[in-house]
Amino acid sequence: MNNYRLKNRLTAAAYIEGVLVGDRVILSRAITIIESNLKSDKAIAKEIIQAILPKSGNSIRIGVTGVPGVGKSTFIEAFGKHLVAEGNKVAILSIDPSSQRSRGSILGDKTRMEELANLKEAYIRPSASGDTLGGVANKTGETMLLCEAAGYNVILIETVGVGQSEIAVHGMTDFFLLLMLAGAGDELQGIKKGIMEMANMVVINKADGDNVALSKIAKRQYQNALHIFPMPNSGWSPIVSTASSIQNIGIGTVWDKIMEFKKLVKGNGYFVNNRKRQQIQWMYNTINEELKQLFYGSDVVTKKIKQLEKDILDSKVSPVNAAHSIIEEYKKGF
Amino acid sequence: MNNYRLKNRLTAAAYIEGVLVGDRVILSRAITIIESNLKSDKAIAKEIIQAILPKSGNSIRIGVTGVPGVGKSTFIEAFGKHLVAEGNKVAILSIDPSSQRSRGSILGDKTRMEELANLKEAYIRPSASGDTLGGVANKTGETMLLCEAAGYNVILIETVGVGQSEIAVHGMTDFFLLLMLAGAGDELQGIKKGIMEMANMVVINKADGDNVALSKIAKRQYQNALHIFPMPNSGWSPIVSTASSIQNIGIGTVWDKIMEFKKLVKGNGYFVNNRKRQQIQWMYNTINEELKQLFYGSDVVTKKIKQLEKDILDSKVSPVNAAHSIIEEYKKGF
Repeated sequence: MNNYRLKNRLTAAAYIEGVLVGDRVILSRAITIIESNLKSDKAIAKEIIQAILPKSGNSIRIGVTGVPGVGKSTFIEAFGKHLVAEGNKVAILSIDPSSQRSRGSILGDKTRMEELANLKEAYIRPSASGDTLGGVANKTGETMLLCEAAGYNVILIETVGVGQSEIAVHGMTDFFLLLMLAGAGDELQGIKKGIMEMANMVVINKADGDNVALSKIAKRQYQNALHIFPMPNSGWSPIVSTASSIQNIGIGTVWDKIMEFKKLVKGNGYFVNNRKRQQIQWMYNTINEELKQLFYGSDVVTKKIKQLEKDILDSKVSPVNAAHSIIEEYKKGF
Repeated sequence: MNNYRLKNRLTAAAYIEGVLVGDRVILSRAITIIESNLKSDKAIAKEIIQAILPKSGNSIRIGVTGVPGVGKSTFIEAFGKHLVAEGNKVAILSIDPSSQRSRGSILGDKTRMEELANLKEAYIRPSASGDTLGGVANKTGETMLLCEAAGYNVILIETVGVGQSEIAVHGMTDFFLLLMLAGAGDELQGIKKGIMEMANMVVINKADGDNVALSKIAKRQYQNALHIFPMPNSGWSPIVSTASSIQNIGIGTVWDKIMEFKKLVKGNGYFVNNRKRQQIQWMYNTINEELKQLFYGSDVVTKKIKQLEKDILDSKVSPVNAAHSIIEEYKKGF
């Protein structure tokens, strides 16, 4: 199987050329190289990324999150179609560390967004799979660069709305969109405060039928809740709106607001500075992640760390002394 | 000066014996050893910690935070005196990474809490100094173990209420107390939502004079705000009360509530499980911190990392490739 896969590989130059002319098939195959864990692929991936890097960045990057059931796929389908109708080329990526997608299969996401998937101005790629959030996020980040180099000027990165992956998506996007539902009673439950705090815009989805009145109440409640946060550095106060993805109501408003945001932050310098900060942070996150992987993946550590945990619980060694001793062992074996 | 300091050192056995009989002078000198960065001291420190470890842990550990101006010292003085009057031995420690305290000087905190400092059942030790929060927190954590071994059954760890140090204090205490002020209007501003979420109890301090009515309003507002968080694993719903530290009103209530909390979490197993989890986490935090220090403190990294940042901003190298290349260099030099 490895042989079959390797035979199918192009040269780095062929991938680069294909991506830069916007060839969707080559783009998909290049992303597969980025996502691959084969050593030979990693070398090609590095070359591809280096070459397309100067052509990347010319987009607005939008993070979309919300708990399961909020109607994310339906919203992205309606939103994506609106973006295409407005003349944009849209790439839809995702970060989902729990994803166990079989290699190359994108059926899952394509059937979720059938109409959008059939537009040639839209490119849908589901989450890379991987063991660590850091690894998955790195692959999605590099996929984003490839899509930008291929001419996609709007990047949507969706995530699942239940944990750390929001922070990763927030760290690589310009605008962070939180989808919520109008509910009875405790409107704010179920979503961590930290995620609320990152949002540039909250959209109350499924504001249709019996839900319209409730959604208006929810909108007011979220507006009050967002008020308690201090003004962000971007100079943009987070806003709340309602939308019905299935009735295609309020979808254009979201895009209009994002354009307003873009105008503001391009004007006040925040857009550029934020991207710079994100790029540097991306390097440091990758370093810190790999340092841990080197350590916790090493033979000496995997052999001894569980015993140390036990010794700590038995008061045989203090946590600090335990840490020092295993690091000494690790350094010896390097 | 080093010579003078070293001549003053006792043997590890003498420190251990002094701490275990509750000798305050020896305790203070042992803590100085823990806080020292001298290599010879570190060996003694390790021996002390190992020896007193089985005698540590018999206390309730309380974290106290709040923004500057909230009246933390006055509260701790009133609270500490109440605890002593109830028959407890109280140690007051702090974590303040910005502290540049000269070695051994505890004048600052002693004058802040003059009456408490004069009680022989109270022991006050200000924050260790250090370059990293992790380092400072480790020293405070080990100081806590020493105080417990010396017979202090209530440990208060205060912090400054403006950043990451709350997370460190929360990670080493059983109960987390947040002091707040009644203000006009935006009650929740100024304190990060994440800190609010960690609190087991919020005390509206300075509820005296003209402030009494406002404090009652604030109490209701915080109660509503805390309601939006899901029930914590401890089974304890965070509560809000008002207090006047200068008039000594509402101070006893805080202690009563902490005792209620203790009874609940000792009964449902959370107390023990939380401590176990904290100890293991303490080891991992120390490891992760030291891995970063080894890396970012190494010659090759300090020499090259700024250039890599520049190359990233110039689109000469991708963040991920930059991270990989510097880690390869680092591994070579190990």
